[in-house]
Amino acid sequence: MSPSRLDFQLEAQATGSRARAATFRTLHSTVRTPLFMPVGTQATVKAQLPETLHESGSQILLANTYHLLLRPGPEVFKKMGGIHQFMQWPGSVLTDSGGYQIFSLPHSRSMTEAGAVFQSYVDGQRILLSPELSIQTQMAIGSDIMMVLDQCIPSTADEKAARKALQVTQRWAARSLAAREDSPQSMFAIVQGALYPHLRRESAEGLMQMPFDGFAIGGLAVGEEKAEREDTCELTACLLPADRPRYLMGVGTPLDVLEAVHRGVDMFDCIIPTQVAKRGSVFTSRGVIQLRRTVYKFSDDRLDPDCTCPVCAKYTRAYLHHLTKTQEPLGWQLMGQHNIHFYHQLMREIRQSILEDRFLQLYHEKRQILQVEDIDHPVTTVKPPVISPDHAQRVGDYELSVTPGEPARIFHITTGQTISTDAAAPLWNEEVPLAQHLRLPADVPAEEATPLILWDIGLGAGAAAIAAILTYEAEAEKGPLRPLHIVSLTNDLSALRLALSHKRHFPYLRHGAADTLLHRGTWTSRYKPGLTWTLLQGPLDETLPNAPTPPELTLHQPLPGMELPQGVPER
Amino acid sequence: MSPSRLDFQLEAQATGSRARAATFRTLHSTVRTPLFMPVGTQATVKAQLPETLHESGSQILLANTYHLLLRPGPEVFKKMGGIHQFMQWPGSVLTDSGGYQIFSLPHSRSMTEAGAVFQSYVDGQRILLSPELSIQTQMAIGSDIMMVLDQCIPSTADEKAARKALQVTQRWAARSLAAREDSPQSMFAIVQGALYPHLRRESAEGLMQMPFDGFAIGGLAVGEEKAEREDTCELTACLLPADRPRYLMGVGTPLDVLEAVHRGVDMFDCIIPTQVAKRGSVFTSRGVIQLRRTVYKFSDDRLDPDCTCPVCAKYTRAYLHHLTKTQEPLGWQLMGQHNIHFYHQLMREIRQSILEDRFLQLYHEKRQILQVEDIDHPVTTVKPPVISPDHAQRVGDYELSVTPGEPARIFHITTGQTISTDAAAPLWNEEVPLAQHLRLPADVPAEEATPLILWDIGLGAGAAAIAAILTYEAEAEKGPLRPLHIVSLTNDLSALRLALSHKRHFPYLRHGAADTLLHRGTWTSRYKPGLTWTLLQGPLDETLPNAPTPPELTLHQPLPGMELPQGVPER
Repeated sequence: MSPSRLDFQLEAQATGSRARAATFRTLHSTVRTPLFMPVGTQATVKAQLPETLHESGSQILLANTYHLLLRPGPEVFKKMGGIHQFMQWPGSVLTDSGGYQIFSLPHSRSMTEAGAVFQSYVDGQRILLSPELSIQTQMAIGSDIMMVLDQCIPSTADEKAARKALQVTQRWAARSLAAREDSPQSMFAIVQGALYPHLRRESAEGLMQMPFDGFAIGGLAVGEEKAEREDTCELTACLLPADRPRYLMGVGTPLDVLEAVHRGVDMFDCIIPTQVAKRGSVFTSRGVIQLRRTVYKFSDDRLDPDCTCPVCAKYTRAYLHHLTKTQEPLGWQLMGQHNIHFYHQLMREIRQSILEDRFLQLYHEKRQILQVEDIDHPVTTVKPPVISPDHAQRVGDYELSVTPGEPARIFHITTGQTISTDAAAPLWNEEVPLAQHLRLPADVPAEEATPLILWDIGLGAGAAAIAAILTYEAEAEKGPLRPLHIVSLTNDLSALRLALSHKRHFPYLRHGAADTLLHRGTWTSRYKPGLTWTLLQGPLDETLPNAPTPPELTLHQPLPGMELPQGVPER
Repeated sequence: MSPSRLDFQLEAQATGSRARAATFRTLHSTVRTPLFMPVGTQATVKAQLPETLHESGSQILLANTYHLLLRPGPEVFKKMGGIHQFMQWPGSVLTDSGGYQIFSLPHSRSMTEAGAVFQSYVDGQRILLSPELSIQTQMAIGSDIMMVLDQCIPSTADEKAARKALQVTQRWAARSLAAREDSPQSMFAIVQGALYPHLRRESAEGLMQMPFDGFAIGGLAVGEEKAEREDTCELTACLLPADRPRYLMGVGTPLDVLEAVHRGVDMFDCIIPTQVAKRGSVFTSRGVIQLRRTVYKFSDDRLDPDCTCPVCAKYTRAYLHHLTKTQEPLGWQLMGQHNIHFYHQLMREIRQSILEDRFLQLYHEKRQILQVEDIDHPVTTVKPPVISPDHAQRVGDYELSVTPGEPARIFHITTGQTISTDAAAPLWNEEVPLAQHLRLPADVPAEEATPLILWDIGLGAGAAAIAAILTYEAEAEKGPLRPLHIVSLTNDLSALRLALSHKRHFPYLRHGAADTLLHRGTWTSRYKPGLTWTLLQGPLDETLPNAPTPPELTLHQPLPGMELPQGVPER
């Protein structure tokens, strides 16, 4: 192969593991691997100052071409001298190509050999994201490492779709490389192939014919099981050249990262450290801490006794518990800062152990601690009786009640309130039937109709949402309809989980939509592609702003105990 | 009077003005006046680190007894050694008593001589906030300066109500003082009396009989005109003793603060610097900058050429424009940091000018600049034709169209879409009439009924909301109803403003509710106290989380061009 622009130097290879330590040089800095890259989608890592990122050991930040193309746009980067200058970041930057985002917008894009056409969420303009536009944008952004535009598909795609996607990715990779022209920026290719070993091999071998500076493993962390991911990761890493960095995209938890280093991967990115900080989850050397828990309310302990970050030096768990409960932005900032430091510290320990050839020992030690919750304050002190999930009578604060001769019911233990499990019960606005809302205006073809957005606030045991799905399916037999997008917002899936484990009592759940929703977060009808159901899980004030709008219909079934935002002035 | 615990030392008194400079000593620091106190309601100033607050010159932070009583609760402060230790704040803290918050919760409190009973938004518990509980809580919090519990009423209250409130405040002040017992914390009284000079005098004289360490001017910045506020402020400041600090609560913009210093006030607090930062408004020596404006998209200028804050040293307007447009929390943090620095810098300049006896000159200079928008990039370069508001045919992107013989209509210029101005048109769900929703269940007394929350998303020209109001008023004639709380959420009031300036064409606007809503942000029926209408203005993803929930009914009339949040994953 041609020499890498990154001057990749392998420093050590662990015994009994594929883990390795290396260095490479970007246009802005020397990078030590293995490393974790915090995600700065919009040219900013959520609530983090560039200087604290730098101090915590961040080497490369990941930014996103799709988002930055739309806003602020490549002209701004050209005028401002590139992303480093724009966001005042002294380290390196890797830009993702936008392939993953395009893949995540199933309802607003069409994919052809030329590229993906989508509608801008900024100004509604239709944009063709081609390999050439992606690379031109990445050149304007001025990242150190550019990614080729790829066609990302669900890891669970069938073989035919997976082969087609990898072949498109292959052709787009060649076009991406050509589009770079004389830019000194590096470029990584992306290996696709879903979970099929022979397709991964075909993809890797094809891409390795071209002079890329590194290789990414794409199309994982998008729906497959952990073991499937790890097997595919290991297989793919083995196929890649030893003298180029290997980057596993979008992965993962600290444990995922450890597992992938063990399998030969050098680079990682993930939104987890800042995303979970927003809900008060913190990684520590004593397990994962959920700061919402009342056990920390009076705790004057530091977050992590073994951590050297500024947050652990200064604040108590009690204060961070308070910031979490009040959803104050300072909490996101401080806990995000700690979590990023935790990832970097883990990577430094991993690297050091590889250099000293004791990685395997570290791997076994870390594996234990990285998968537990707070070991000093376990969540359950009394072990619940062991019952198989199929027969669990309780999930969370919900209980199943079965009286012979009566319909089974699910009730909320604390309040005694019964959750609707009747998909034939009228929706609250049944008097304007849903069917009538779904009807197409006479002069509008189905493909131009405005989707009907239905907010299902609370979700309950899913009966209302399934009722809407059944209505849609029945009406669609009669003729074309407007698309229907059901969005369920909830903080607590317990009632639905409980109902699903007792399907014989709740026949409406024989419809597979609820299983898929729980498993994947979204469901699209195979036969009626206009019909989708999406789950937004979390506190309402976090999920509502991300819900598609405007809702034309809204179902309200707030669960008992659901904490609702209030409007008290601050002063 | 007894000596102040604060050892207040008057240093200088301006010539030709009531402005003065002083120092006083709290339990934690020496304070120089005049000063501005950033608001840290929940023991954190929105998105600000304690160290940057300290570096920018913050001397006292304001925290809130009402919020901190509910969460984390006084026991946490006792265990953690007080608020300074809890939030790691080395300076001083003033705690507001909760009076203002109680006053802002008209539907969930009842007020008696004992105190105010309200329902906790944390756990639903009913709490009697008495002067004793307020002071005990403030002692647990460990603030340097405690405020008495007061009865705050609208500044526009009638004389009888205003006298009653100040008399209660007077008795509560005595009880607050007694409740302090042997605590070394200082305590300020609060002068009430609405806009009545003789009541302000009565209130001040009564309170000055008691050994308070300082005096606050309360009940302003709650609905009155600017001139009324300034007159009442000046009058009240003159009534107060010269050897005690004077604190104008909840005020205000930099210009308001300058005006009040001129009238003899020493201390201020306001959420403005952090609140406006969230929407990208920034105070500078060249006027107020709205960073959303496209004029800053490519600007490599600093925010303020004369500012010495770290944000101005590092970032361009283009980057802060981008953070504003993408609503990134780093933007709130950086612009809040700058705004707080701006306030402190203004106060330092004011203080220095008083010490050098050139305040009056500074006052006249600052008055000019503090009331303008960006003077280097004025909002309108071409002056619009001068038309009186009564005859404006256009407001924002909306235009009035009057064709003789037809109803006048308001349309959106860019899209041509007509806005509903028909308060007799059916609400979308008219087939379940609103009247039916409002009906009281047979066994529920009116005072225990759940309020019906109606979200009016979009507002338009107010026709739908007024239709709901008219329905309520008609139904209420027939018998008791459930309370109705209409919440209008919009980013653009232009259509309503335009309609209001042409009332003769839009008879439904003769109902005064819309005028009051525009003027005060909220309207409550004088005759049907269960009927209220609240305006939440801003982008939907900022206002929705603050809207009361759950909405039982939702009207959707998104304005053309309304930017809606999207659900694109970040990665």
